[in-house]
Amino acid sequence: MTQSVFFFGNGTAEGSHEWRDLLGGKGGNLHEMTNMGIPVPPGFTLATSLCDTFLREGSFPPSLRAEVDAALRRLEAAAGRRFGDAKNPLLVSVRSGARVSMPGMMETILNLGLNDEAVEGLSAQSKNPRFAFDSYRRFLQMYGDVVLGVPSHRFESLLANKRMLSGATSDAEIPVGELRALVAEYKALVRHTTGRELPMDPTEQLWGAIEAVWRSWMIKRAVDYRRVNRISETPGTAVNVMAMVFGNLGDDSGTGVAFTRNPSTGEKRFYGEFLVNAQGEDVVAGTRTPLPIEEMETKLPAAYGELIRVQKLLENHLRDMQDLEFTVERGKLYMLQTRAGKRTVAAAVRIAHEMVGEGLITREEAVLRVHPAQLDQLLHPVLDPDSAARSLCEGLPASPGAASGMVVFDADVAERRAALGDRVILVREETTPEDFHGIVAARAVLTARGGMTSHAAVVARGMGKCAIVGCHTMDVEVDHRRFTVGDTTIEEGDWITLDGGTGQVFAGDLPTVPSEVMRVIGGTLPANDAPVFRSYDELLSWADDARRLRVRANADTPNDARVARSFGAEGIGLCRTEHMFFEGDRITPMREMILAHDEPGRRRALEKLLPMQRSDFEGIFEAMAGCPVTIRLLDPPLHEFLPHGGEETKLLARTLGITRPELNRLVDSLRETNPMLGHRGCRLGITYPEITEMQARAIFEAAAQVNRRGIVVIPEVMIPLVATVKEFDHQRRIVDAVARDVFSGMGTDVPYLVGTMIELPRAALTAERIAERADFFSFGTNDLTQTTLGLSRDDAGRFLPMYVEKGILPEDPFRVLDQEGVGQLIAMAVEKGRRVRGTLKMGVCGEHGGEPQSVKFFHEIGLDYVSCSPFRVPIARLAAGQAALAHD
Amino acid sequence: MTQSVFFFGNGTAEGSHEWRDLLGGKGGNLHEMTNMGIPVPPGFTLATSLCDTFLREGSFPPSLRAEVDAALRRLEAAAGRRFGDAKNPLLVSVRSGARVSMPGMMETILNLGLNDEAVEGLSAQSKNPRFAFDSYRRFLQMYGDVVLGVPSHRFESLLANKRMLSGATSDAEIPVGELRALVAEYKALVRHTTGRELPMDPTEQLWGAIEAVWRSWMIKRAVDYRRVNRISETPGTAVNVMAMVFGNLGDDSGTGVAFTRNPSTGEKRFYGEFLVNAQGEDVVAGTRTPLPIEEMETKLPAAYGELIRVQKLLENHLRDMQDLEFTVERGKLYMLQTRAGKRTVAAAVRIAHEMVGEGLITREEAVLRVHPAQLDQLLHPVLDPDSAARSLCEGLPASPGAASGMVVFDADVAERRAALGDRVILVREETTPEDFHGIVAARAVLTARGGMTSHAAVVARGMGKCAIVGCHTMDVEVDHRRFTVGDTTIEEGDWITLDGGTGQVFAGDLPTVPSEVMRVIGGTLPANDAPVFRSYDELLSWADDARRLRVRANADTPNDARVARSFGAEGIGLCRTEHMFFEGDRITPMREMILAHDEPGRRRALEKLLPMQRSDFEGIFEAMAGCPVTIRLLDPPLHEFLPHGGEETKLLARTLGITRPELNRLVDSLRETNPMLGHRGCRLGITYPEITEMQARAIFEAAAQVNRRGIVVIPEVMIPLVATVKEFDHQRRIVDAVARDVFSGMGTDVPYLVGTMIELPRAALTAERIAERADFFSFGTNDLTQTTLGLSRDDAGRFLPMYVEKGILPEDPFRVLDQEGVGQLIAMAVEKGRRVRGTLKMGVCGEHGGEPQSVKFFHEIGLDYVSCSPFRVPIARLAAGQAALAHD
Repeated sequence: MTQSVFFFGNGTAEGSHEWRDLLGGKGGNLHEMTNMGIPVPPGFTLATSLCDTFLREGSFPPSLRAEVDAALRRLEAAAGRRFGDAKNPLLVSVRSGARVSMPGMMETILNLGLNDEAVEGLSAQSKNPRFAFDSYRRFLQMYGDVVLGVPSHRFESLLANKRMLSGATSDAEIPVGELRALVAEYKALVRHTTGRELPMDPTEQLWGAIEAVWRSWMIKRAVDYRRVNRISETPGTAVNVMAMVFGNLGDDSGTGVAFTRNPSTGEKRFYGEFLVNAQGEDVVAGTRTPLPIEEMETKLPAAYGELIRVQKLLENHLRDMQDLEFTVERGKLYMLQTRAGKRTVAAAVRIAHEMVGEGLITREEAVLRVHPAQLDQLLHPVLDPDSAARSLCEGLPASPGAASGMVVFDADVAERRAALGDRVILVREETTPEDFHGIVAARAVLTARGGMTSHAAVVARGMGKCAIVGCHTMDVEVDHRRFTVGDTTIEEGDWITLDGGTGQVFAGDLPTVPSEVMRVIGGTLPANDAPVFRSYDELLSWADDARRLRVRANADTPNDARVARSFGAEGIGLCRTEHMFFEGDRITPMREMILAHDEPGRRRALEKLLPMQRSDFEGIFEAMAGCPVTIRLLDPPLHEFLPHGGEETKLLARTLGITRPELNRLVDSLRETNPMLGHRGCRLGITYPEITEMQARAIFEAAAQVNRRGIVVIPEVMIPLVATVKEFDHQRRIVDAVARDVFSGMGTDVPYLVGTMIELPRAALTAERIAERADFFSFGTNDLTQTTLGLSRDDAGRFLPMYVEKGILPEDPFRVLDQEGVGQLIAMAVEKGRRVRGTLKMGVCGEHGGEPQSVKFFHEIGLDYVSCSPFRVPIARLAAGQAALAHD
Repeated sequence: MTQSVFFFGNGTAEGSHEWRDLLGGKGGNLHEMTNMGIPVPPGFTLATSLCDTFLREGSFPPSLRAEVDAALRRLEAAAGRRFGDAKNPLLVSVRSGARVSMPGMMETILNLGLNDEAVEGLSAQSKNPRFAFDSYRRFLQMYGDVVLGVPSHRFESLLANKRMLSGATSDAEIPVGELRALVAEYKALVRHTTGRELPMDPTEQLWGAIEAVWRSWMIKRAVDYRRVNRISETPGTAVNVMAMVFGNLGDDSGTGVAFTRNPSTGEKRFYGEFLVNAQGEDVVAGTRTPLPIEEMETKLPAAYGELIRVQKLLENHLRDMQDLEFTVERGKLYMLQTRAGKRTVAAAVRIAHEMVGEGLITREEAVLRVHPAQLDQLLHPVLDPDSAARSLCEGLPASPGAASGMVVFDADVAERRAALGDRVILVREETTPEDFHGIVAARAVLTARGGMTSHAAVVARGMGKCAIVGCHTMDVEVDHRRFTVGDTTIEEGDWITLDGGTGQVFAGDLPTVPSEVMRVIGGTLPANDAPVFRSYDELLSWADDARRLRVRANADTPNDARVARSFGAEGIGLCRTEHMFFEGDRITPMREMILAHDEPGRRRALEKLLPMQRSDFEGIFEAMAGCPVTIRLLDPPLHEFLPHGGEETKLLARTLGITRPELNRLVDSLRETNPMLGHRGCRLGITYPEITEMQARAIFEAAAQVNRRGIVVIPEVMIPLVATVKEFDHQRRIVDAVARDVFSGMGTDVPYLVGTMIELPRAALTAERIAERADFFSFGTNDLTQTTLGLSRDDAGRFLPMYVEKGILPEDPFRVLDQEGVGQLIAMAVEKGRRVRGTLKMGVCGEHGGEPQSVKFFHEIGLDYVSCSPFRVPIARLAAGQAALAHD
């Protein structure tokens, strides 16, 4: 028979904090503290697996009853009290305690063991009848609610009556007589509601409480919490039964919570609060204002001294910042709980960094301590925490940061007003590439439709700009230049504030503050005055030391490239040439090119675009001096570049010298049923080789120019959307020919690579063919996800959230790589590619390149680099470091 | 040194017809005939590989000159004449002859060896100066054009002058003196145009001619012919040099062509035509009307007797119908060529079948003799071959057959007029599922846009209805109810005729005739009077004996099912339930369901649809008694079912009791950016489980009903667009629950399967997971092709034809399965699926199920069945038989 119940008390425990799977986090630490000689009330822990059994079979192993009985006898002995004893009764708490902390999600019963006899014993022993009966009525209320299912508010209303009748302003003022009466009323309430008596036998009470804790594993808030926090369903929760100690026995008693370091800033300073003559729930309830922990030194000096000793001991022993709960009973300190403390990212970074300095943990451990995705929060401006505004509505937090600005409803207005110096927020039903200049001009973007990977989300994230998308309760009326949420109407020019970290939208101009890290990077704060920055910076350098994956950025402009470098990017993995075409006047020659009747017409328009592209590339090459720059040739369907009616159409028709109906017909003829699967990518360069020629020329001319200035240029030309090696061959021949022409004309020679995006299943499946001709593979995981799953990013919003909620998909596959499907294809392509060409350079340039779980996978299958938006570069660096450390 | 030149003559030859790769088809057969003792003028063949060398390196092996000289000496000896001899000159023909016959595509030079001296010898020897000089001027013209590149029309204009000056009405009337003068003029023309003399040395002439034949391998029409007919580029053409014989030496001479059987009907009767006193080109030129071959018996009795002997000998020896060319010189027969004769499908089927009866070939050989794709032509009505109309325009021949009817421009009009008994042809820019009832009502469909797998093409093909799509020169003006092609305008109500076999569109009502096979199947012609049907039927039964793959049909209605069975379908592999919703009034409750605000609203509408679906399924189960019927649950995006403006919107708004703007907003909200990758397939059934419930109920209630009537029902429920096994699980649970409910309610039990379509790469990649839960896999190769290649069927028209033309893709992947990419995924899924469940039933239900090359692949990777549109079932049966025979 396996042991299921584990005892702790009197300085020794059967378990330890390493038995977390078996005893839960709380239980393990209680055992550990006991073994460390730290004062912990005695008790025992029921193993987590019992919860699984109970939930699965509706019963527990028959042998368990005897095990619990035995543990109870040991507990009585250790506590020197007896369960249900009329003189010296043992009271216990019954608490949950899962492997991963789920604070407040499950049930707790305190003061268990009280009955009509024991309450008299407690009263006599404590010489405090009020305390005894208050404890009793609290127990009855908790047990009636949690175990027997009597609605809590029924108890509350009886209590309120008593308060009223006795003229008390708080529960503490209710006289003991009324409390005695209340106890009787509570018992009657249970009898009437459930048809049976609340059990007076403490053992029966105990079993009821244990089962209630097990059942609470499945209550909705707990299930939701696990889903949101991706906590496994098994093992379930342990149950901890521990002797009660009382902080409310007088002024030599008290209770409190504390952190071994500041959980908000990470500063190494003991931090907490306490109440004299109070129980734990009083601290939480907020009915009395707790005192700063330092004041305990004067109020409860002995216990305080002990607490200081214990907290140091615990942090050193458990090697992490601890979150403590304690009670002082008649001057003696009891520790009720210790666990790794929750902390802000800033604190996490600072604590991990400083603990290395203190010799508490290694650099590798420090790197593994911080969740990479959270680093984001260190980079984006934050709402001033002092504001107490109520949010107007809530959407998906697509790109973090906080921003305030005047609402505008189209990109042109955004650009115009921004040029005048206004801070604007672009609000759209959803955005399209045509809105690009508006997103550039705006402080933030807010859309009513679209998901985490919609156009607005991706573009804003790429720019490190705050964005909230899919805010469904908004009704955007562009024609009326306003949006409404319920009764509230926001007109163009009104101020709103977005919190991209939470997805909350506020009316008005809420103050924001730039983050410390950004102030250092931006040069407005000396690093010396920035402890978080210093920790962040050194932690990342340790991650850099560990990692094997290189980290590049997706960047389309010289400015993006500079930002990317400041975050530590080691090159550009994806420079999307099309974004350049949306800037300023460039859209006009682009449209002329698209709508040209023939090749000479296209060439004329391309001639106008050539110098613009070339100068962009020069800027990017300069900013990325010495680092590789992967430039993707024109990718999106041409229809995306065309105007969709209105003033723009009129102007364009005039420019082209055709009628509006003619222009509309031309535009319509380019419309596609499924543009994602249409005439785009290398298919454009194959139908119109002159486009590829122009782009290659711009790249190589820029490379040669910059190279002449003594700057090392490493251009990598990337052919998009290749399905067969013949497409690649076709485009490569053009690129190579242009390179020869440019370099011989300029009398120079810049080494370059020509590679391809692997973003269609067929490309992955035939990677061994493509590897024969390509110098590198860059996995375009966004499109590869779309095609492998047959799932349009733009349309998935209708069902994808429900899919994730129902567990049909474990995650949004556009956020976290679908390793089983898409990952399998990538791994296959890596293997096939390397078989043919061992030195083939391989990376990722999809959104997943900055997502930690996905980065880990890319490390494991042996890619050379990941590329992500500039603001995610620190995340990718840390994640890559962690992957390497986890892997070694 | 390898031998490159192979001699034949005097009853022995160095090669044989099995050396086709080395000697080409024509050369091989000349050698074979020589060895068989058949009279063939002596000659020699230059191996095909020399052409490759010449085209690659621009020169030939130095040793070749000596080899050709030696062969020429043997030829002179055999012919008893000398090259360039002034008395008794040897003249030769120089002809191409590739491995696969490419008739008329490459160059030929006749009468080579003539010069100013030899022409006098020929004149004296033939006692026919006119003949000699006419031969000479023909040689000069041919050589000047083909070898020296002097444009043919320059010669023609000199010839026309002579005709005019001599008052001749035909070339044959030009007096010999004028021909002498013409020869001088021709030589002067060559001199002036090329700057050099036309060579008088016969050996120099010969080398010029040989090189010209080699070069002609690359002339445009030859390259195009190879591309269209998928003939390999290597090896190139052989060159045959053969002594000239003359059929124009008098009334004891002549020339002709013949087939050993009728190439049009297949009847076993010697068939051909000939001319007395004529050269081969006269037969082809059509200046004189040839006589039926039978008349040769009286005109040239000895030669005719010999020809009859030779043709029998050749057919028996080469075991196929032969296409012969011969010349009679002064009473003696010479065979100039024999090759397998081109024939119609009817003839091919009948000849293959009858040759088995004659013991000439085996049943297996007969099965392998007929190209499966051509069987189509036997089923569709054909234009009356006597009509001589000129086509208006030409589109893609999407679905074969011929049809005439009045033009209508929308589906409603089509339905109305068809109900009145009119024969209509639906003409659209392109069709959508909303046009379904119009396609049902129309005789044929014509569209200006779309490719071979556009909606119109797929639906019409499925119905065995003629369709021409992508007829780009048409300008369809639906508003004006007309279409124009150039200057011609066709108004609604005008008659047009389509030839779906060629893609040609004719104005007016051209007569058509139903095919013989269809008349037998339709019961209007007794099989005894239908030799083609009998051959077709027996040939297919032999294929059935050979094949391992089962053949099912894609059929959506009871009528489709009956047609499919008449073509030999062994079940339904794909019944698309959505097509049922477009019929008659059903669209209204369907739209109510789609636009319902909540589940109760949807359920109310579904209740109305239930009895309709059930009765459809009953009809289908009855028609398919004893055969499996795979029913796919609702698949297309719901937006497809909604009206797009106009009268319909108005009516629907009234029915739903909402305003038109409200309705438009609802319709718009369902619009998707990429509907192919959107909210469709099982995603619908997961978001709206009540749809799956209703469909499962309709299926099982129908199955139970039909089963009660003593009919064996084998329902297979198919879940579409599954990407993960969890989706399948979700839907399977609903289907199984409904089945239990229906069967227990009706007190019956019908065995059924629940399987899935594998139509997304992810499903194929995770097939081992899905196989754990699914009873069968049906590969949906249409969608799998779209996702694997990232290629929308609807949009690919913009570049796919160019891709195929440039050889970037070998074929349209929607027509012929892309084995390297999509096929790799399918093979992977088969392997993974069978590994988990050896008995897993697997088939194909995409368009490729009726395409021979693809069927062969499906056989090879071990699928259990293919399913295709009813009219392609015979093709699939034959292709499956061939695959099995090729494989064994």
